[in-house]
Amino acid sequence: MNVLIVYAHPEAHSLNGSLKDFSVQHLQQSGHQVQVSDLYAMNWKAQLDAADTLAPLVGEYFQASQDPRFAFEHQLQTADISAEQEKLRWADAVIFQFPLWWFSMPAIMKGWFERVYACGFAYGVGEHSENHWGDRYGEGRLAGKRTMLVVTTGGWESHYSPRGINGPIDDLLFPIQHGMLFYPGFSVLPPVVFYQVQKSAETRFSSWCDTLATRLDTLETCEPIPFRRQNHGDYAIPALTLKEEIAPGETGFGVHRER
Amino acid sequence: MNVLIVYAHPEAHSLNGSLKDFSVQHLQQSGHQVQVSDLYAMNWKAQLDAADTLAPLVGEYFQASQDPRFAFEHQLQTADISAEQEKLRWADAVIFQFPLWWFSMPAIMKGWFERVYACGFAYGVGEHSENHWGDRYGEGRLAGKRTMLVVTTGGWESHYSPRGINGPIDDLLFPIQHGMLFYPGFSVLPPVVFYQVQKSAETRFSSWCDTLATRLDTLETCEPIPFRRQNHGDYAIPALTLKEEIAPGETGFGVHRER
Repeated sequence: MNVLIVYAHPEAHSLNGSLKDFSVQHLQQSGHQVQVSDLYAMNWKAQLDAADTLAPLVGEYFQASQDPRFAFEHQLQTADISAEQEKLRWADAVIFQFPLWWFSMPAIMKGWFERVYACGFAYGVGEHSENHWGDRYGEGRLAGKRTMLVVTTGGWESHYSPRGINGPIDDLLFPIQHGMLFYPGFSVLPPVVFYQVQKSAETRFSSWCDTLATRLDTLETCEPIPFRRQNHGDYAIPALTLKEEIAPGETGFGVHRER
Repeated sequence: MNVLIVYAHPEAHSLNGSLKDFSVQHLQQSGHQVQVSDLYAMNWKAQLDAADTLAPLVGEYFQASQDPRFAFEHQLQTADISAEQEKLRWADAVIFQFPLWWFSMPAIMKGWFERVYACGFAYGVGEHSENHWGDRYGEGRLAGKRTMLVVTTGGWESHYSPRGINGPIDDLLFPIQHGMLFYPGFSVLPPVVFYQVQKSAETRFSSWCDTLATRLDTLETCEPIPFRRQNHGDYAIPALTLKEEIAPGETGFGVHRER
């Protein structure tokens, strides 16, 4: 397989750096082709703005959807953006690895999504009608590709448990896994989460590598999270609410998984 | 009151820019002191890294918690970070205004939190023991201050409803409102959310301003979201799970609000 690792940590000598190096080596030894987008090392530009398009503005002022769309459609995006889109086209699987900072990904990776996921590339794709609300949530440009998060936290596993004070880890990752990955079509594998990483990292490193190796070895075969596909009958369109007869009376992130 | 508006949008002529200008004017006319951190206009540095500290590294390599903590404690942070912390100390209320991009705040604002919320300033504060797990989730350096999100979305309100495909807006904002705002002590007011803002923005602008004015007029009096305080008996410490007798059998973000 072709595997892209999108990775965000400011320090190469960190645990995250070591885990990323381990993944690259392990995947290569298993015969995969690997590319790494090391966002800090690349000095990735985090903020989406008018400098992302080499075209004249579509309207009187910069529009965060329409100008990137025009640039995408006319091959007038900046080189850093088009290079990342090319890596996504090349990849069969994409791993996003980062430390959980303030319950989400580091800003530099959020900015990777905002800029690489241009309108026309990752959203605003496909027919919009009474029966089909864009190619998204199970369809889209990245359909057929697999993805997996590799996340580290300082907090304890219990703090992220179903009744833990930080909120359940699956719910904290929902805006990423469902909203940013399933949205443009990725099949999203269950995440790999390493908790409480500051303490005794040295002694636990080899067990973390074992866990990671197991998950890397099943990248092609692991069952994805069964998120519901938008345009396959479960949702009323265009309201995009789950139909009454499905998970009746239930609410929240959990209803968007098939049972 | 002293009101700080932290604002992120790349285009001054956008709807977000107009709403921000309206808020500044309305607050000033009501007799409040207002400061604005316009992150795009300030060219705010989004990525947390070793350049944020003017001190030598504490260890052999950069550590994302310990080096910012040392810099904070020794007044060796960069000037942009200490200026924002000073604005937070000055403020009685802080408004965070942004467009919802990929179900969260823009990268540039995420980077504001990562860098301004230094270890020792906004986390890693207070006693850590069997009875008290840091001054956080209801305690902390920003206790006594109020905060409110002002958010715009392209999607429809139904898409963000309790059974909407994007997930309920309250759950999408939980990692911000609970994890980033309640965490260092803010009293978090219910958010102001404007949906489907691309279409017919001109004709709906005055009604949005009316809504915003009403909420700005009640900044001092509006009832905060009743998130549960960490160190006041509801949670088992140090597991930090909600005690069994509280909301028995329930899970998810909702259990962290008092009924």
